[in-house]
Amino acid sequence: MSPLRRLNALARLVMQRCDALGKISEAPGLLTRMFASPAMRRANQLVGAWMRAAGLHVREDAAFNLLGRWPGANPKAKTLLLGSHLDTVRDAGKYDGPLGVLTAVAAAQLLRERGVKLPFHLEIAGFSDEEGVRYQTAYLGSGALAGALTADDRGRIKEKQIVKARRRLGEFLGYAEVHIEQGPVLEKNNLPVAVVAAIAGQSRLRVEFHGVAGHAGTVPMNLRRDALVGAAEFVASVSSLASKSTGLVATVGQIEAAPGASNVIPGRVTLTLDVRHQSDSGRLAAVRALRAKAGTIARRRKLKLIWTAMQQTAAVRCDRRLTRILSRCVGQRGLEVLKLSSGAGHDAVALSNLCPVAMLFVRCKDGISHHPAEAVKTGDVAIAIGVLADFIQAVASRHA
Amino acid sequence: MSPLRRLNALARLVMQRCDALGKISEAPGLLTRMFASPAMRRANQLVGAWMRAAGLHVREDAAFNLLGRWPGANPKAKTLLLGSHLDTVRDAGKYDGPLGVLTAVAAAQLLRERGVKLPFHLEIAGFSDEEGVRYQTAYLGSGALAGALTADDRGRIKEKQIVKARRRLGEFLGYAEVHIEQGPVLEKNNLPVAVVAAIAGQSRLRVEFHGVAGHAGTVPMNLRRDALVGAAEFVASVSSLASKSTGLVATVGQIEAAPGASNVIPGRVTLTLDVRHQSDSGRLAAVRALRAKAGTIARRRKLKLIWTAMQQTAAVRCDRRLTRILSRCVGQRGLEVLKLSSGAGHDAVALSNLCPVAMLFVRCKDGISHHPAEAVKTGDVAIAIGVLADFIQAVASRHA
Repeated sequence: MSPLRRLNALARLVMQRCDALGKISEAPGLLTRMFASPAMRRANQLVGAWMRAAGLHVREDAAFNLLGRWPGANPKAKTLLLGSHLDTVRDAGKYDGPLGVLTAVAAAQLLRERGVKLPFHLEIAGFSDEEGVRYQTAYLGSGALAGALTADDRGRIKEKQIVKARRRLGEFLGYAEVHIEQGPVLEKNNLPVAVVAAIAGQSRLRVEFHGVAGHAGTVPMNLRRDALVGAAEFVASVSSLASKSTGLVATVGQIEAAPGASNVIPGRVTLTLDVRHQSDSGRLAAVRALRAKAGTIARRRKLKLIWTAMQQTAAVRCDRRLTRILSRCVGQRGLEVLKLSSGAGHDAVALSNLCPVAMLFVRCKDGISHHPAEAVKTGDVAIAIGVLADFIQAVASRHA
Repeated sequence: MSPLRRLNALARLVMQRCDALGKISEAPGLLTRMFASPAMRRANQLVGAWMRAAGLHVREDAAFNLLGRWPGANPKAKTLLLGSHLDTVRDAGKYDGPLGVLTAVAAAQLLRERGVKLPFHLEIAGFSDEEGVRYQTAYLGSGALAGALTADDRGRIKEKQIVKARRRLGEFLGYAEVHIEQGPVLEKNNLPVAVVAAIAGQSRLRVEFHGVAGHAGTVPMNLRRDALVGAAEFVASVSSLASKSTGLVATVGQIEAAPGASNVIPGRVTLTLDVRHQSDSGRLAAVRALRAKAGTIARRRKLKLIWTAMQQTAAVRCDRRLTRILSRCVGQRGLEVLKLSSGAGHDAVALSNLCPVAMLFVRCKDGISHHPAEAVKTGDVAIAIGVLADFIQAVASRHA
């Protein structure tokens, strides 16, 4: 089989595997796979079987990360880590996360078929938690491996043995991750892949407004302390501030009004706030401005404001050297080398605490992600597998 | 025992019974009793036992309404109906509804103790559904009895036999209901009770905004179709419009954003809208203005708007003759006769389809209702029992 036909066959295999993984869910009729759920256990079993078929040694670490290892000849050599995550958001698409794990398995399989010998160990991680849906955190899996969990993260989760997943500083020579772009830029530029230059920082907060519940028919408007009206003004302010600030995105994704009956004035509203910016100072200034805005609304409406920072991630620049190698591998396929910033967080953020990181984005249909309509092209996946295999060999040739 | 001491003893009994009923809930740690729930069944059993102790003949009708009957000497006579509802909102107080049922039972007990013979049948209803929490309707219980269920109501509920609860037009000579005020006016006027002149009309609607879900980090603000931002603007508009219009109250009590993850742009929001006004034309104009506002917001934000009228109740004037009799009974106790309009709906609204209605409001602490802090004074309850007993006798003397 020609190299190109073999790549295309592996890409089709990756697409089939994404379909199969997409059926492993904890909810009927939609795809939801949270940290340490029975569905995650089944996903790890299935991907573990595929890793073994590619000749990898498979284990699960104390953070439920699935790890497939291709040991190099020299036991004292460092390890090149590849991978992405196997957890999902609620009602997810099937490529966000799994595509990175499965293209890495395919690239390893390709190199083993070619009889390649590596001067380092190769390890592929299927991280157990990147989306953070279960505990309202992020990177529990990759963060545990990178020793990057905060005291707050550790307090919030039940599984205390998770810290044992931590790996040694200096053990990894680098981490490379393939991921769908989750945005519209590659499609607009008619390109299959892009190299990631940096990943935006992120603040996650919980915001509560407390007022006074009351009867929807008998409390005159001027005597109300309606928590939802204050929260609604805040949601509108979040959108309005972010729309005016270049590079800033801010989102309220969850909202709950209590007691929650149609004829009762809401006495308490809890909502989530997600703020991201390429620049850490830009992000922190936005969070401060939104807190001030929430305070003003709360004072005017006689509400109590409870503002809780849940998690913060600094912006991360990808490693110059690894990114240069990755860019060459893209260029050698005759493709324009587009460099993008990522508005989404990735496991690479957690790994950047431990080793140099690099990322390759794959074009996705209409830029849609975190939605069942997520879609990628088989031809683009073939290119990603080829670039990743070339990257491993290029790092090997520079390492030797 | 002097008449006053007997009234006070009965009022204390009513307070103890409200306490006991307040412990019968379908949710641990708070009071929630919905239509046709196991908790409602237990509540009906308990109140039924108290009705029997007062000498009433007890049954449950096809709509799960609890009915206690004191038959008059003449089988062909009409029936005077008293009562209120035994269902509650979520996390409710213990007086909204039960106080009206239990003061009626106490008034009947008082008249029987005095050896009074009535020229009509007296019937006391504990209605099974006034709040409408379970099916997002209202007056399912009293509406079924009054033959006032809409086709939409009947479609929404599971229990099809409910229509058999309907009573005959001309069977009742009137309906009188005691209820807490649920507002601050009696307290402000330092009065224990007031006579209700009219009950505001009410529109209940379900409003949906449909946009496009997406990743909170990668979809730029200007490309978003965030359903929650549109919904938030609408919630703020509801409050702002109602604040500017005399006599109008409008409330969003429930809101749900889907898919509901902190890092996903909401693709769909569903909320409830409750609009009330003393004048039907004022209420309908407000609903039209809010629909236009929602349409403008949806067009500007490229959202789909789904606007569903769930239920409408016209404003109801209480019966002049019964209200005059009730007012005299209040005045005969040396009290100023305050006439109020009710911003809240009551079972009397449904009953007004079947017979003349009258209502007596009892002062409640801080005007609070639909909240565990609901409170009434034992002395005010004694006055309400006395007024109601006098009212029954006054109607009897005019009837004879």
